[in-house]
Amino acid sequence: MALNVGAVSRMLQMRSEADQVSVFALTLFVALLCACIVIGHLLEKNRWINESITAIAIGLITGTILLFATKGKSSHVLVFSEELFFIYLLPPIIFNAGFQVKKKQFFRNFMTITSFGIVGTLISFAIISLGSAQLFKHLEVGFLDLSDYLAIGAIFSATDSVCTLQVLSQDEKPLLYSLVFGEGVVNDATSVVIFNALQKFDLSRITSGVALRFAASLSYLFLTSTLLGVAVGLLSAYIIKKLYFGRHSTDREVALMILLAYLSYMIAELFSLSGILTVFFCGIVMSHYTWHNVTDNSRITTKHAFATLSFISEIFIFLYVGMDVLDIEKWKVVGKRLGTSVAVSSILLFLIMVGRAAFVFPLSFISNLNRKSASHKIGLKHQVIIWWAGLMRGAVSMALAYNQFTRSGHTQLLGNSIMITSTISIVLFSTMVFGFITKPLISFLLPPQKQLSAPSESELSSTKPLWVPLLPNGQDAQPEINGHDVNRVGSLRMLLRTPSHTVHYYWRKFDDSYMRPVFGGRGFVPGVQSSPAEEVLQ
Amino acid sequence: MALNVGAVSRMLQMRSEADQVSVFALTLFVALLCACIVIGHLLEKNRWINESITAIAIGLITGTILLFATKGKSSHVLVFSEELFFIYLLPPIIFNAGFQVKKKQFFRNFMTITSFGIVGTLISFAIISLGSAQLFKHLEVGFLDLSDYLAIGAIFSATDSVCTLQVLSQDEKPLLYSLVFGEGVVNDATSVVIFNALQKFDLSRITSGVALRFAASLSYLFLTSTLLGVAVGLLSAYIIKKLYFGRHSTDREVALMILLAYLSYMIAELFSLSGILTVFFCGIVMSHYTWHNVTDNSRITTKHAFATLSFISEIFIFLYVGMDVLDIEKWKVVGKRLGTSVAVSSILLFLIMVGRAAFVFPLSFISNLNRKSASHKIGLKHQVIIWWAGLMRGAVSMALAYNQFTRSGHTQLLGNSIMITSTISIVLFSTMVFGFITKPLISFLLPPQKQLSAPSESELSSTKPLWVPLLPNGQDAQPEINGHDVNRVGSLRMLLRTPSHTVHYYWRKFDDSYMRPVFGGRGFVPGVQSSPAEEVLQ
Repeated sequence: MALNVGAVSRMLQMRSEADQVSVFALTLFVALLCACIVIGHLLEKNRWINESITAIAIGLITGTILLFATKGKSSHVLVFSEELFFIYLLPPIIFNAGFQVKKKQFFRNFMTITSFGIVGTLISFAIISLGSAQLFKHLEVGFLDLSDYLAIGAIFSATDSVCTLQVLSQDEKPLLYSLVFGEGVVNDATSVVIFNALQKFDLSRITSGVALRFAASLSYLFLTSTLLGVAVGLLSAYIIKKLYFGRHSTDREVALMILLAYLSYMIAELFSLSGILTVFFCGIVMSHYTWHNVTDNSRITTKHAFATLSFISEIFIFLYVGMDVLDIEKWKVVGKRLGTSVAVSSILLFLIMVGRAAFVFPLSFISNLNRKSASHKIGLKHQVIIWWAGLMRGAVSMALAYNQFTRSGHTQLLGNSIMITSTISIVLFSTMVFGFITKPLISFLLPPQKQLSAPSESELSSTKPLWVPLLPNGQDAQPEINGHDVNRVGSLRMLLRTPSHTVHYYWRKFDDSYMRPVFGGRGFVPGVQSSPAEEVLQ
Repeated sequence: MALNVGAVSRMLQMRSEADQVSVFALTLFVALLCACIVIGHLLEKNRWINESITAIAIGLITGTILLFATKGKSSHVLVFSEELFFIYLLPPIIFNAGFQVKKKQFFRNFMTITSFGIVGTLISFAIISLGSAQLFKHLEVGFLDLSDYLAIGAIFSATDSVCTLQVLSQDEKPLLYSLVFGEGVVNDATSVVIFNALQKFDLSRITSGVALRFAASLSYLFLTSTLLGVAVGLLSAYIIKKLYFGRHSTDREVALMILLAYLSYMIAELFSLSGILTVFFCGIVMSHYTWHNVTDNSRITTKHAFATLSFISEIFIFLYVGMDVLDIEKWKVVGKRLGTSVAVSSILLFLIMVGRAAFVFPLSFISNLNRKSASHKIGLKHQVIIWWAGLMRGAVSMALAYNQFTRSGHTQLLGNSIMITSTISIVLFSTMVFGFITKPLISFLLPPQKQLSAPSESELSSTKPLWVPLLPNGQDAQPEINGHDVNRVGSLRMLLRTPSHTVHYYWRKFDDSYMRPVFGGRGFVPGVQSSPAEEVLQ
């Protein structure tokens, strides 16, 4: 403890200077965030530009200015920290995703989403690991061992769900959104879990025993993480229903929801589970039960406050990525071997595209085998969109790459330096170029037959081939708000045809009979089925 | 930059262990915050206990458990950091105070509030500095020089507005609240400004020249900080009115308000102004203009989200103070000189009480000289409440004490160690004991003549002696919501008698003619005068 206090006092002495730097950094960052919001708003009508691209561009411009201002010494004001990313920025984004997701869509597509998110990510991981190990041999990339190649596989199988979300709109294309985005969350979790598992296992010799234990470990992590999220979500519903019954205090309710959601993430991280999965399911359970137990004001507040926190975190990440691009040190080392670096980035981009194609099309094919009618199959156009939407790489890849390639040395080693700059190049290229093309591509493949302000029958029919096989009775988001009584009327007919609907039907019975009496939720005021994103509160 | 990257990589290597510790610390802290909210809610009916006391008590219990768990090594999981406090926890509390304050009450009492907050704090500072310099001579407290004694004056003139707020209720006693709380904010700003100014000036020889420059520096800081806050507030109103006109986006509006408010604080800190004053006035301007330019959902969201953030920050601070009490290192050094430590704490507590009495009663007397009728004077009972409500010392004192007495050495030096433990003792004693007595004391001095749920005529008359002299035409919060047209009817009669009302009247004319057309605000929908705290949205 004497040491501790000594360290604190030294820290305080050092901090007088560091303080001023961090105050300046924070001020600049907050000012840039404001600029991103205002400029993003002004560019809203532009169909080619989204908020991620705006933030990256502003980050790049600021980085350039800083580079000149510091005479080439540094292009960024904050050092990228995994802790900042994984402990503070990622949880609100993923929690909000779970909180605002259209639950019905998500759970009806559950099998497809998880097969894409888990099996798909594993396929992608294998292809990128093997491919890079084979192809990098012919390039002089410095020393990379087996664990590095496996890490590369995990790093580049993590799609950027944040960026994808901004490209698709939940209101315009609810089911395509739910599929692509649901896969994105499961994929994030899977790649982080793989990455962490790789560091624990001794993979110097891969035997079937090791592979089996690896698979068992993954399954265990998925199951426990999900259960933890559900448990904390139910706890919040129970506490708020039990204690706050009749005498609501808005600030306490909102504070408790925020803190418990964050607690679920932290507990998962503490026990080395997947916080991403935990907080995602916590968000779903909270929107299904807790959200209905609080006052009207708390509902509006939580809905918008969570969305705002997530929004700020997203811009923060992209702004940082933009500023970090020009960081000169990495490029100095790589500069002498620019050709190699470009080759590495190109190979990785190629492997990413192949790795994704290698599961989207086969898994869609398998999924289509189970569909009887031709109109129920996943069409080629939609497979292409699903493939394309997952090509972006973002902050998760960055964070994992920093973890792997700055931990075992620093970026002055050639191999590490090349991998870091390649990661940045790929994130930048995929977000800016692929992101730029996505909106026009979707418009081209699925031309809107009506104004987007009225996304009803016409849009439904235009995208039918994608979601009809996933939604057995062909209903979309619109009929949903008529409540589950509507579903029940037609459910007997559907029951024998589609097992997923049967599961949903029995879940509803169970939910109404056992869950809602204990945990509250909309069941007490029978009527509209909704999540915070669906209910029109304004 | 090479150094920088090397440092980062070393940091990352060290962090693997530190990470686990900080994840545990955060998890525990978040869990304790949840416990505070739930227990605070359960104890709500108790008139003696408030949330601060609950949080400190939980912190103490947790500290004791940790002390046993770590075998006497440490009682807390987070090291108290000035940065955490001044950069992250204090801004939301002060901003929310400005945002929710009943503006009319605040501005009508403006002269009284500022004379208490500025002149009063200077008097208190002088008495505590001189008193401690004289009285500590006879105790062996280790080496303390003139700058230490002046710092002690600043440290212990900072009242704890957070704690005071929880004792008084804005709805039950709106004017007493506004007076005590308004003074608290100005006092916080004044003592921090004095403390910072002390560190810049060479005070080894105090001449009239130094004193004059000191006073000029203080006035400059007050003026510029206030103007900066007003400017940023107006900027937010202008941007949101101009750009978001007609096509509102709730998340962007809320994000922009939060970020701009924080930006005002950071800019003030960057230019060594008083961030506390800046963010307070930014909050007032935002609630007067910006808040009326956003959508209904944004209004509800900002009102409750800001209150929630402030609420969480408050509990966080008290929880930390509770856990820090038992930190063993400080007590080991002091342990051998327990008598001295108790004497120092007692002397300081005595000086705090004298220092506060030395301005509350004389300034009230001066204020009363200007009042003609006896019923307009500030009664003795109310002077006692104002005196008592400012006796609590809290996190600002802690933060300043850590800054002064761990910077110039560590707590193993006797003088520093005694001052740190005395600060903790005084914070603990004043919050727990004085805080405990405050509620009963107020009930005893101002017995509620009616149920608190109907705080109208009866309560108004019971507290008349206090606020009538401050509110010239004797109206309270209730008539206020009838709008300014009501005021105008009676204003001609009042105009000659009371200058503050005249100022208010002309400000309203100016506001309606020049400000509101540019910056929006309620003026466009003529009617109810309100701040977010007053409007009933539910």
